[in-house]
Amino acid sequence: MDKKEHPSNESAMHVMKGISSSHDGFASSKRKRFRKKAEDLPDVHELAEKVQAGGRNDLAKAITFIESNLQRHYDYGQELLQQLLPHTGKAIRIGITGVPGAGKSTFIESFGHMLCDRGLKVAVLAIDPSSSISGGSILGDKTRMEQLAKHPNAFIRPSPSSGTLGGVHRKTRETMLICEAAGFDVILIETVGVGQSEFIVRSMVDFFLLIVLTGAGDELQGMKKGIMELADAIVVNKADGANKKLAEKTKREFNQVLHMLQPATKGWESKAFTCSAIERTGIPELWETIQEFEEKTKASGVFEERRQLQTREWLHTLITEQLRTNFYNHPYVKGNLTRMESQAMSGEVTPAQAVEELFSNIYK
Amino acid sequence: MDKKEHPSNESAMHVMKGISSSHDGFASSKRKRFRKKAEDLPDVHELAEKVQAGGRNDLAKAITFIESNLQRHYDYGQELLQQLLPHTGKAIRIGITGVPGAGKSTFIESFGHMLCDRGLKVAVLAIDPSSSISGGSILGDKTRMEQLAKHPNAFIRPSPSSGTLGGVHRKTRETMLICEAAGFDVILIETVGVGQSEFIVRSMVDFFLLIVLTGAGDELQGMKKGIMELADAIVVNKADGANKKLAEKTKREFNQVLHMLQPATKGWESKAFTCSAIERTGIPELWETIQEFEEKTKASGVFEERRQLQTREWLHTLITEQLRTNFYNHPYVKGNLTRMESQAMSGEVTPAQAVEELFSNIYK
Repeated sequence: MDKKEHPSNESAMHVMKGISSSHDGFASSKRKRFRKKAEDLPDVHELAEKVQAGGRNDLAKAITFIESNLQRHYDYGQELLQQLLPHTGKAIRIGITGVPGAGKSTFIESFGHMLCDRGLKVAVLAIDPSSSISGGSILGDKTRMEQLAKHPNAFIRPSPSSGTLGGVHRKTRETMLICEAAGFDVILIETVGVGQSEFIVRSMVDFFLLIVLTGAGDELQGMKKGIMELADAIVVNKADGANKKLAEKTKREFNQVLHMLQPATKGWESKAFTCSAIERTGIPELWETIQEFEEKTKASGVFEERRQLQTREWLHTLITEQLRTNFYNHPYVKGNLTRMESQAMSGEVTPAQAVEELFSNIYK
Repeated sequence: MDKKEHPSNESAMHVMKGISSSHDGFASSKRKRFRKKAEDLPDVHELAEKVQAGGRNDLAKAITFIESNLQRHYDYGQELLQQLLPHTGKAIRIGITGVPGAGKSTFIESFGHMLCDRGLKVAVLAIDPSSSISGGSILGDKTRMEQLAKHPNAFIRPSPSSGTLGGVHRKTRETMLICEAAGFDVILIETVGVGQSEFIVRSMVDFFLLIVLTGAGDELQGMKKGIMELADAIVVNKADGANKKLAEKTKREFNQVLHMLQPATKGWESKAFTCSAIERTGIPELWETIQEFEEKTKASGVFEERRQLQTREWLHTLITEQLRTNFYNHPYVKGNLTRMESQAMSGEVTPAQAVEELFSNIYK
């Protein structure tokens, strides 16, 4: 019976068995330290079905496995994800960034509310590298987006707060897929301008939105290089009251700059908009723009091409991260890297020689 | 006698001995294949002294060792470089980029001539990733810069045309150091906008110059993302004759954009200029700007800080390149990567699972 309902599960399980054993092979020592007495895990097919059926608690439970640093939970989460993979990919994935204070939360609250009121299911995720470094989180504040959180069509998940940046990256990406399998139509991924987070979010979304304030010249001093060229649209926020006129001027300035930059997406002209999250103006126009973007890029093939490339690049990012983790955690590297760096920087040895000494001592 | 003249050579040699043996340990199989019967190599101290004394043929010979793919020559080149390291770092390093047709060669010819006429020694190097891929070179044409090449103060070296991109990167960087030890005051490193070459050149120079033409809006369609934010100055070339007025307009447009972007160098406001390589106008002003840049950033410490960071980052780039080379050349990866990529892209497995399968089969 069960077999009939899930004809592809057996082969999928087979692949998983081969893979899960690899955790004992490398780089899982940290996870293994936390290994404890095995508890009963829910049946993976059953949970997958419940997630697809839209159970909110089941979704939260599934994400907990994805986010867990326990080996057994990680393996279970991967197995679950593989079950759900065929049901992913139907949402539009939107990345949202902007310096702290630009009003990302109020924007998402307004934007999300409008979408939910139109009957769309909206998941809000966050990536916040500060949480993986300090344990604290700029975005993780659970009192934010209080109104949106109450809407039956909305699901808000704060940034995973433990693990390396690579781990947080993986968890956010996989959580997005789980949400898609759970039937969400729009995924919003929020990030603050810390570390490489904007580039990470850009690498997992279809449409990338930059939120700015008026007074662009000064404002931009806090913005990282290359961010503007990632944006499919720029929104000048807080275009209300006395600020309205200045916001329009800022919009024009950004449009001039965008005209001079390479477009973020092939065949799409990135433009600036104004909006007021408080007065809820400009928000419907922005959604129309995103829909137009989706339509155009799907017709040209750019949409699907980017997703394929993103998956492929993600695989190679994981490879590089794993290689670097293994190398930099090697006892010889840990004990000698600082010395080799100093010698290279002071001109005692060439960097090529320093690297060769490190490698020859590891792979002798 | 010899010992007295080179008190530090013994210890330097000692380090080299330890390192050179590492070539037998890993990743040098390609070089080893080319190994042939040992010939007599010149005494390394002697050649180092001749390079420092300014012998043009000795300089060319030294660079040949740096560029060689033969294991013995590579080792010799590294030893030579280490001898010369204390005498490097005194030049100003200038990177020059621009789309094909922007007039980089004529600009360098004019700019180089002016510097040489003022008594400065100018070395012109090039980095051209197309040469490492196809064997052909966009920049390697030896008939270019004919006039400058004849000047006794100029030294022109085309892009190394063999090896991987990482190898070409290393060779250019090390050739720059050899030229500095040979007493060159200005190093110009030219690149075309192919692959990651602008980012590579930016990572090894003090000042980065972007050469553009008029009609910026259209012109920029061919420019890669993020390039403008690398530039310490933008030069609108061919500002002569009927083109002069349009060039001035283009300059103003670029200044507007630069004002909105993050500065390439801390404490330095990047600006646009016009010049005519043919009429030789605007060139002295640009050199004044570069001298002002050097003065300011040396006073603020930004100059030295960047060089230290560049060396450190270069070391870590080499590490990552070596790790990736070893991984992607592994027989299991070569035989299975394409299959794993396809499975990940078609959604059969998650990228995390694909990576784990690869690693578990390599490190079992």
